Amino acid sequence: MECFFKPKAVAVIGATPNKAKGGYSILKNLSLGFKGGIYPVNPRYDEIENIKCYSSVADIKKPVDLAIIFIPARFVPAVVEACADNNISGVIIESGGFAESGAEGKAFQKELVRIASTKKIRIWGPNCIGLVDAVNKNVFSFASPVMWKVGLAPGNVSLIVQSGMLAGGFLLDTISHGTMGISKVCSIGNKSDVDECDLLEYMLDDKDTKAIGLYLESISDGARFLNLCRRSKKPIVVVKGGKSKQGAQAAMSHTASLAGNRAVIKSTLASAGVIETKDFKQMMDYCRALAIYSKLPESFTGKIAVLTYSGGAGIVSTDYIEEMGLTLAEFQNETISRLKTVFPDWMPASNPVDLWPAVEQNGPAKTFEVAIDAVCQDPGVEAILLHASTGNAVMDLDMKKMSEKVKKSGRLMFCWLLGTIDAAKRFHIDTQKHGVPVYRELYRSVECINGVFSRHKYIKDIKEYEKHTYPGKIPENLLAGKTYESLIFDEFDSKAVLKKCNIKTVEEEIVLSGQGAEESANKIGFPVVLKGLIKGSAHKTEKGLVRLNIGTGENAKLNFAELQKGVGANGKIIVQKQLKDGLELIIGFFRDPQFGPCVMFGLGGVFAEIIEDVEFATAPLSMGSALHLISRIKSEKLLNGFRGAKKLDRNEMAKILVSLGNLGCCYSTIKEIDINPLIVTDGIPIVVDANIIFQQTVEK
Amino acid sequence: MECFFKPKAVAVIGATPNKAKGGYSILKNLSLGFKGGIYPVNPRYDEIENIKCYSSVADIKKPVDLAIIFIPARFVPAVVEACADNNISGVIIESGGFAESGAEGKAFQKELVRIASTKKIRIWGPNCIGLVDAVNKNVFSFASPVMWKVGLAPGNVSLIVQSGMLAGGFLLDTISHGTMGISKVCSIGNKSDVDECDLLEYMLDDKDTKAIGLYLESISDGARFLNLCRRSKKPIVVVKGGKSKQGAQAAMSHTASLAGNRAVIKSTLASAGVIETKDFKQMMDYCRALAIYSKLPESFTGKIAVLTYSGGAGIVSTDYIEEMGLTLAEFQNETISRLKTVFPDWMPASNPVDLWPAVEQNGPAKTFEVAIDAVCQDPGVEAILLHASTGNAVMDLDMKKMSEKVKKSGRLMFCWLLGTIDAAKRFHIDTQKHGVPVYRELYRSVECINGVFSRHKYIKDIKEYEKHTYPGKIPENLLAGKTYESLIFDEFDSKAVLKKCNIKTVEEEIVLSGQGAEESANKIGFPVVLKGLIKGSAHKTEKGLVRLNIGTGENAKLNFAELQKGVGANGKIIVQKQLKDGLELIIGFFRDPQFGPCVMFGLGGVFAEIIEDVEFATAPLSMGSALHLISRIKSEKLLNGFRGAKKLDRNEMAKILVSLGNLGCCYSTIKEIDINPLIVTDGIPIVVDANIIFQQTVEK
Repeated sequence: MECFFKPKAVAVIGATPNKAKGGYSILKNLSLGFKGGIYPVNPRYDEIENIKCYSSVADIKKPVDLAIIFIPARFVPAVVEACADNNISGVIIESGGFAESGAEGKAFQKELVRIASTKKIRIWGPNCIGLVDAVNKNVFSFASPVMWKVGLAPGNVSLIVQSGMLAGGFLLDTISHGTMGISKVCSIGNKSDVDECDLLEYMLDDKDTKAIGLYLESISDGARFLNLCRRSKKPIVVVKGGKSKQGAQAAMSHTASLAGNRAVIKSTLASAGVIETKDFKQMMDYCRALAIYSKLPESFTGKIAVLTYSGGAGIVSTDYIEEMGLTLAEFQNETISRLKTVFPDWMPASNPVDLWPAVEQNGPAKTFEVAIDAVCQDPGVEAILLHASTGNAVMDLDMKKMSEKVKKSGRLMFCWLLGTIDAAKRFHIDTQKHGVPVYRELYRSVECINGVFSRHKYIKDIKEYEKHTYPGKIPENLLAGKTYESLIFDEFDSKAVLKKCNIKTVEEEIVLSGQGAEESANKIGFPVVLKGLIKGSAHKTEKGLVRLNIGTGENAKLNFAELQKGVGANGKIIVQKQLKDGLELIIGFFRDPQFGPCVMFGLGGVFAEIIEDVEFATAPLSMGSALHLISRIKSEKLLNGFRGAKKLDRNEMAKILVSLGNLGCCYSTIKEIDINPLIVTDGIPIVVDANIIFQQTVEK
Repeated sequence: MECFFKPKAVAVIGATPNKAKGGYSILKNLSLGFKGGIYPVNPRYDEIENIKCYSSVADIKKPVDLAIIFIPARFVPAVVEACADNNISGVIIESGGFAESGAEGKAFQKELVRIASTKKIRIWGPNCIGLVDAVNKNVFSFASPVMWKVGLAPGNVSLIVQSGMLAGGFLLDTISHGTMGISKVCSIGNKSDVDECDLLEYMLDDKDTKAIGLYLESISDGARFLNLCRRSKKPIVVVKGGKSKQGAQAAMSHTASLAGNRAVIKSTLASAGVIETKDFKQMMDYCRALAIYSKLPESFTGKIAVLTYSGGAGIVSTDYIEEMGLTLAEFQNETISRLKTVFPDWMPASNPVDLWPAVEQNGPAKTFEVAIDAVCQDPGVEAILLHASTGNAVMDLDMKKMSEKVKKSGRLMFCWLLGTIDAAKRFHIDTQKHGVPVYRELYRSVECINGVFSRHKYIKDIKEYEKHTYPGKIPENLLAGKTYESLIFDEFDSKAVLKKCNIKTVEEEIVLSGQGAEESANKIGFPVVLKGLIKGSAHKTEKGLVRLNIGTGENAKLNFAELQKGVGANGKIIVQKQLKDGLELIIGFFRDPQFGPCVMFGLGGVFAEIIEDVEFATAPLSMGSALHLISRIKSEKLLNGFRGAKKLDRNEMAKILVSLGNLGCCYSTIKEIDINPLIVTDGIPIVVDANIIFQQTVEK
């Protein structure tokens, strides 16, 4: 990938002196920043913009490592082959007309995929705006050279964007509003070869990148993507487009790529510590906080001091802080005393700190400095949310001095800013230069504080969870001897398999006669359940084949007779212990088209379908990931015991999840495993009903 | 209130030539815009800024209807009395040092309250920044005169803000960024007399105001506030500060006012059609959409066409549209054909409409015009979300022409904008002048579209619901003959009262012996429940006094004997029909400190405390409000039948809610009524358990 980010010489195939064309912009952008050799290629010109122009890449006769291609799609494959033949390591194809367009375009793209896999060349694009590297001033893009005039502010956040127009639009908007500096913007387009994983992997080791934001419509290799995120020491923030049913349709026709299942994406991203945001700008707002505060002291949990000039804004900040699960720091007496030195007598000092009355007495600079000093010495304060106002002389603050104090004290600082447009832009840029992220909406500022602390908590939690291990070994030949010709194991056979994987299942027996049912029920102990199992069908309840609350042997006999009629000659009838009421859970295994084998954990029972509280992780699962998965459901507090019920033994539950994932991963013929419900009895989860579903018929 | 908004002459008490002081700013602001008489009052000067200065209000000797006061708190009460004595109708007190400060300040404010109630004068403030009226150029405020330089853009949104600093800060930020024009900003401060209700009432009839935004920390008279909101034809958007426990504490020390219970505020505001937002800027963003689109054609439901230059932004818009319950419009064939006239051949036309390939062929102006024409002729399109980009010549659009076309077609249009800072500000201001609200974050733009359609739905729903009526008459002397000395009726007595109000309760009897229990159970039919009721206690289950699933007479007898030991001499034992499993609901009545009598409706049962799905409305309830209340719970779909259960008869449910509210309102001794659960059996809600709790002992 080095050829894309640190080329020594670049060829521009499709360079032109016509200023309205992309081929001109690419050349112009190169000449404004790139320090290496620049070789325009176009047989129609001898020179463009005073740079010698070549008729073909073969003509250049000097070492070139990167070519940027902006010519009609039909000419592209041959040119890429020529690049490969002339030892060019990578090409960025920025022209469109490939998989996103008609059948012909799809054929061109297929050709590119073939070249990438057979020749020694990496292909970035097509249908993208390439790369903008604001730190190294490498702009390998047909994006408008207007950006140079606006001021291409370098920063430490890199973006990977699956939409060229968005990448370009946001870049211009961001730099001209002074929102933040940028390291690299990579527009990935149709991903014929280089994809988000290749770029993400590069960014993880890129010294100019401290946080990474991605806009993705599809994820080419979900498992690799999640592994990269999991091992990343840098914060990663994602906007995932194409989440809704309608959105996914749009994604298909737009980038010829599949959009994944919404819930799975959301949950697996969370499992890998990725922060997901709704809006692009929100993504960038998170990124600039996370780039600054990517590593916090171990002990930090999110204790915030709010310094404000408006009591109202202080109140609202407090609302947000509490809503998001952060804490308003409780001040020590010393802190209160220090604040009181600038406060009017009548005014009590507390958090949020309303400094306005003190500002009226002492001026803003002194008041805010005293306040910063006070909170930075308080061991109960970890982060400061400073409210600032500019464009109005009464609130001038020395942000440089204050931010240095805060940094020295090991605290974090965030700033919410109101003000007139020019003064605010200036304040915003200057303050961020001092390492304090600035936000224009108060809610967003607290959201971003929460993003920083949430990531910190994720890192700590995972470290703790990963102390636990469990092999979850799966026996061989588990499926041997089964002669079902259908694609589904009934619950008895399914549970037999699970039991061999050390998963606790409910006590049950196959019975062959009324007499047998009575004896079995007596042995198991009342109440029992009688179930009729039909080969190849998972729908027992709907067919009236589940008989609950059977309290006598006689009743068992009676129900056996009825069920026998229901299941017919090929069915089975089982007697099962009826567990006392307890928390119902649902778990499952399946293969996701983007992420591969996945395990699900969630709340079962009648309300499951209303509150839809299920989470996902990719398999195989470590014991740590399994414990993390359990902790991620919204109703987590239910697991800690409910109305007198004993709390769930999370270790036992995690072991089952590990085994379930391993089972699915070991036997590639398994398509899905549905376990619903597991009932938590005295804290232990026991499988009550289960079905294993196969990709193809299992026969031995 | 006219004296505040349309005074003929204004006195400025505390006027000063010292430019650093508020008394100067007030005078300066007046002289820059106010057309009537201006009378500075300060015994130390003969003239200020070339205006004759008076030593006291008595000295003016000309008709003055409004005085703005900015002098130390201790002098204020006497001055206000002098104003009243000199026939001044209203004063705006902008100085602080009152209830928000120490004991002395509280005494001064008390004095103001006394004056307002005894003299013929209205008092606005203290501790506020007064009024800024950008339409009439009446700035009665010490806010920085910088605003005149920034450009006090008139608009049709008025704000009522319980925080002076916020009001001032936002005003300056908003006008300088060109976010929107403003009609009136009212900073209400400590509300010694004039409060949010007085101002809201004025705005409802103010011809310059089309939408109203409020920031409130407390609501002085909840019932009046909700009534005003309910009768408002203008959209109202509220940010409520002091929602969290910690926030409420901050609110108390800041404005000496009580913050109400979070859930009650949220739900009662929704019951009155008020839109609640989290952030101030979000509030203003909603307001400017709602001011333009305050009334939609009856049939509109939220069908959106998205016109974009970026496939990615189209995809994400679709995600948001679906998430919020809006609909992506389905295009007619004619619309597709019209779009195809500018599309390249390979490109299918669908919604969201990705116009970039067409822009490349036809230029932006023509392409977008064709697209606007097409969607405006499609009967399936109600609103258009246009994505614009500016500061980059390739995307120049004629917004005037397009907005006129859209308006003529009866559609709504919203715009999401990216661009360089100056060009974007210009585009933003110009486009809003053409009646199209512009947003800088895509998510926010869809949020605001949703705000417009949600309000429309509220208006339609309420109209529909209000067609139903039910008197819910409550008999007199309901509580007569009860000799409990405790503050709570047991469930038997409570249900006896409810039954008399025509509320269906479960069949039950008091039994006095084992024999009686057996007979009663036989009569009611098995299974039955036996319960032991202890005087003055609502905790039966915890004490083991509830016996479920009693299936035989013998068992009833047995349980009677056990319960008798549990309840002791003063208790009661009842036999109750055990209803078959059904949806469990919870309803209740209580008196909220801010809103007065309230009724609650929500989901009961074991999961109730996990998902906390309850909603509120103030009592007495109309049948329409009761039906609306029922429809507002998050799990509404559960009410439509669940796993084969019959759907809830909402009319029956609403009648119970009406009666419950009336019962509480008729009997002022009732503090709370708790009905939990009601079980829905064959669609009919039946009260299974209930307790009436009294303010004081009921005895007759």
